[in-house]
Amino acid sequence: MDDENRVFRPGAVVYEGSQISYAGSPDGYQGPLEQEIVVPDGILLPGLLNGHNHAAMSLMRGMADDSPFFEWLTQHVWPVENRLTAEDIRVGSLLAAAEMIRSGTVGFADMYFEVEATAEAIATAGMRAWISRGLVGLEDPEGEKLNQAVAFARDWQGKAEGRIVTMLGPHAPYTCPPEYLERVAEAAKLAGVGIHIHLSESADEMKQLQERYQRTPVQLASEAGIFASRTLIAHGVFIGEEDLPYLQGMTGGVITCPVSNAKLGNGILPYAMLKEAHIPVGLGTDGATSTNSLDMFLEMKAMAWLQKIAEGRPEGFHAAEALWAATRGTAEVLGHPGGRIAEGAPADFIVVDGNQAHMTPEWDVVANLVYSAVGSDVRYVVINGRIVLQEGIITTFDEAEVIREAKARGERLMREGAKH
Amino acid sequence: MDDENRVFRPGAVVYEGSQISYAGSPDGYQGPLEQEIVVPDGILLPGLLNGHNHAAMSLMRGMADDSPFFEWLTQHVWPVENRLTAEDIRVGSLLAAAEMIRSGTVGFADMYFEVEATAEAIATAGMRAWISRGLVGLEDPEGEKLNQAVAFARDWQGKAEGRIVTMLGPHAPYTCPPEYLERVAEAAKLAGVGIHIHLSESADEMKQLQERYQRTPVQLASEAGIFASRTLIAHGVFIGEEDLPYLQGMTGGVITCPVSNAKLGNGILPYAMLKEAHIPVGLGTDGATSTNSLDMFLEMKAMAWLQKIAEGRPEGFHAAEALWAATRGTAEVLGHPGGRIAEGAPADFIVVDGNQAHMTPEWDVVANLVYSAVGSDVRYVVINGRIVLQEGIITTFDEAEVIREAKARGERLMREGAKH
Ligand SMILES: [Zn+2]
Ligand SMILES: [Zn+2]
Repeated sequence: MDDENRVFRPGAVVYEGSQISYAGSPDGYQGPLEQEIVVPDGILLPGLLNGHNHAAMSLMRGMADDSPFFEWLTQHVWPVENRLTAEDIRVGSLLAAAEMIRSGTVGFADMYFEVEATAEAIATAGMRAWISRGLVGLEDPEGEKLNQAVAFARDWQGKAEGRIVTMLGPHAPYTCPPEYLERVAEAAKLAGVGIHIHLSESADEMKQLQERYQRTPVQLASEAGIFASRTLIAHGVFIGEEDLPYLQGMTGGVITCPVSNAKLGNGILPYAMLKEAHIPVGLGTDGATSTNSLDMFLEMKAMAWLQKIAEGRPEGFHAAEALWAATRGTAEVLGHPGGRIAEGAPADFIVVDGNQAHMTPEWDVVANLVYSAVGSDVRYVVINGRIVLQEGIITTFDEAEVIREAKARGERLMREGAKH
Repeated sequence: MDDENRVFRPGAVVYEGSQISYAGSPDGYQGPLEQEIVVPDGILLPGLLNGHNHAAMSLMRGMADDSPFFEWLTQHVWPVENRLTAEDIRVGSLLAAAEMIRSGTVGFADMYFEVEATAEAIATAGMRAWISRGLVGLEDPEGEKLNQAVAFARDWQGKAEGRIVTMLGPHAPYTCPPEYLERVAEAAKLAGVGIHIHLSESADEMKQLQERYQRTPVQLASEAGIFASRTLIAHGVFIGEEDLPYLQGMTGGVITCPVSNAKLGNGILPYAMLKEAHIPVGLGTDGATSTNSLDMFLEMKAMAWLQKIAEGRPEGFHAAEALWAATRGTAEVLGHPGGRIAEGAPADFIVVDGNQAHMTPEWDVVANLVYSAVGSDVRYVVINGRIVLQEGIITTFDEAEVIREAKARGERLMREGAKH
């Protein structure tokens, strides 16, 4: 997975500081080495980039699963969110970081509240994160939360050796009226940050906005000036032909979240249409409250399976496209130079254990990675030149303690819920 | 997962020989114990039953993936199958057994050739298997292969402490003309064995049989007398209302293979219709050549995701239904008393490690098992009262040696293929 999608066997990657300085055949490198790690049967690939998450929602994993959507949101998610403290958010973010690191994710785009707690957790965890404070226009008439979001965006931009990138996060056009979206768009331009927004996720959303504004979500976002800044569109299930002119003129792209879209019964991204229109498509999990897992290997499978169902033929979607979406695709949406193995690229990569029954034999290494591997096959994770997972052990924080803390907090939330 | 679907926390299972003698709260058992294993944070559930497999096809995992179906089958799968030796089949079956045991599968229904090699491998591996020799009527004008299949079915029935059950395996109505299906049906009745058959898998198959016989695959099977014996129908994607009367009169049921159906672009099982008609639905992976993984935890996810997509709402399918299909559902199709934890049931169960980031917290243990767990979370597998996976180690054969052998054989098949 260098810039020409070559596979080297054996292969070697050399990095210096936070950048890759050599990638290719081991014979091709003659320079000095401070330390060398040899992984027999290891498959080295770019670290995965999760383009859409609400990390701290991992504390609600599995809560009221399979309930009708509106009941789930209003009677379960919102009441629990109202009780989350900053410390809950910190622990929930570390819980998500543990799961992401273990499953080969090196960075993620996040939208939530108490973002300082998430930023601190991720700085500690050693991951990359594109963090935005989620903004619900209907609850922010004075723009106070927008101001806080901008302050956070300015304060944390480039922190943690550049691993933290900030964005603005207007939740969606059905929770942020056009005037509010305009204010966010203006603020993003002024602050010079990108925008993370949910668009065209469900049939209900499409219907509601059509009735209220006679517009699609993409049209509303475009008219409000959102696309004047780099924009990460989460979901995009219902993007139609009529939206393409707006998307082709923008910087950024669409993050598909196939597991969430399937689990909530929303549908399948019109990937083939976006591909033909040259709109970058990245991959994300959405929060674990709806997806239940932050494993991007599962997400790649779901993307491939659903796209093949939509196409009605096996050759309608290729494993390499899912791997691209989970690496370069998300990177292109974010404007990040990662998601690839090449000289000068960030030293963000992972090593998967190929010496396992379910990875044997290896007719096609990309098919094995996408269709056979799961997150727990990842043995090493290197982010920004630092080994964050080493032979299956997280090196940056005490994972067992985080699991204990998260369990205790989850149980508290369950007890509190039972009182109401 | 006892007969009333109760969850005991803490819970205890006691078994004697090959049967469960107690299941419930630890306090409820006062009898003697020869050996006791305590697994903190372990989640004990029935062993998973994979209702449709071609185990030895694991040797072709990932081969020519994402190719057009007919090209894949005729230019890749068949030429390699022609070169497979009995020893290849034995090693391929053990490779599949390693993957299945590691991911919590205790038994599977298999259809392939060189079935003695598979039966021997599975007897060694300690698993259960319902084995049938695949029969292609078009290649068996004299009925010689049918005779061999019947001889195998008689010889191996009930072998390996009852873990091996034999069936007859007419491949499908598009490869077995009606007269051949009639002969198989007659032979099955005489031998007193069940039948394993692919039905209604693809749109092409439906069209072809409609044109040739003006019948659906289910109607053809029924008219040939197949349903006079217990029948395992693999796939069933295109079963329609018109097929229901035939299915309601039969013993057995449908095994859905959602990953294969998605990966080959075939479609989604009409599960809701079958459920309403009270036709048992079990779950299977199909061979690793099309599915790439024998992990039934992935298969449960795929079933839930696809059914929710088909229903268009999150409450349209519940996690418990996927878990049911992977345990009781397959057991009912096979007429097997397993797939449940209860006094008198076979001592076939597994323990999943709940103490992991991606399983934390536990709002809903069934949701966590279906949506968050993967096969590698399984720590113990007990089959027929024997510990086959112990703290992640396979106890019945040398897994590392099987992986080495399978790699070498896979590489030989690749080299041989390159020559043609
Ligand atoms: Zn979201
Ligand atoms: Zn099959």
